[in-house]
Amino acid sequence: MEQSLDRARSLIRDVEDFPLPGILFRDLTPLLGDGPSFQAIVSEFIPWANHVDAIAGLEARGFIFAAALAHSLNIGFVPIRKHGKLPSLTHQESYGLEYGSDVVEMHQDAIAPGARVLIIDDVLATGGTALAGIRLVERAGGIVTGVGTVLEIDSLGGRTRISEAYPSIPVHSIFVM
Amino acid sequence: MEQSLDRARSLIRDVEDFPLPGILFRDLTPLLGDGPSFQAIVSEFIPWANHVDAIAGLEARGFIFAAALAHSLNIGFVPIRKHGKLPSLTHQESYGLEYGSDVVEMHQDAIAPGARVLIIDDVLATGGTALAGIRLVERAGGIVTGVGTVLEIDSLGGRTRISEAYPSIPVHSIFVM
Repeated sequence: MEQSLDRARSLIRDVEDFPLPGILFRDLTPLLGDGPSFQAIVSEFIPWANHVDAIAGLEARGFIFAAALAHSLNIGFVPIRKHGKLPSLTHQESYGLEYGSDVVEMHQDAIAPGARVLIIDDVLATGGTALAGIRLVERAGGIVTGVGTVLEIDSLGGRTRISEAYPSIPVHSIFVM
Repeated sequence: MEQSLDRARSLIRDVEDFPLPGILFRDLTPLLGDGPSFQAIVSEFIPWANHVDAIAGLEARGFIFAAALAHSLNIGFVPIRKHGKLPSLTHQESYGLEYGSDVVEMHQDAIAPGARVLIIDDVLATGGTALAGIRLVERAGGIVTGVGTVLEIDSLGGRTRISEAYPSIPVHSIFVM
């Protein structure tokens, strides 16, 4: 497994100036395209999902890891989507990104009151999307048990921002760059 | 399993006038939020993925089912994304939707030449996105072994359109409405 994790990390591709000049984009698609690497990543998430009732995934890349994790645990998957994508009644939260800002939404009935929810995204950058996700789960009556990401970009301070706002919510990351 | 599939079907929610007036949207999020239903759906996909090297998922809802399937089979997941979302060199194909039109892309190096790829989406409507996905996989040198969807909307003719263009590619759907 350690070997697969090393391989997974080696498959993360750096793309310069995407989506905007000056941004270094960490592209996880080569990792996803390799079955054992994808497997190794999801296996790392499993211990963070102890006693969890549902996995929430942040659109769109977070869906990939969150859905695989929810499926492997036989629990529900909850999409947190960009504005205007969910058809029924939603809660909405705005957030700032590394590059721009946006609104995310979750269906008001997506989780049962008191449900324990792990939030999954691919990359933790400034933490803005994850913080909006936490607020959405809490507004729907859920309990956020943690935030899990494949790759934490340490210099962008997401972990600190989440820990300051929600000291009791652990932040997990497999790789830190 | 039959019972779980019946339950899964019962959890598909009809939302009128979304995303535009006159459109009846089939919302699969209640199904996804129920672990055993999500499980039952992915299990139905497995026989369609015999001797497949990778699962391609169509953004964004297709990611959810495709990623869970790829993970459960220990094979790679390939995202087919909306225009401008993939950071490296892509092939591009345009397509018409039930409501509007758009461009999808796949990384040129996403699949190995000769790889056998199953394309997964949540809903088969006009078939436009699936057809664009087939063209993308073929341009990258892959072989499309089939198109699988949770829900086929029979009246929109997607199955016929795919079968006419690609008679040798089977179209699988779990539910037909």
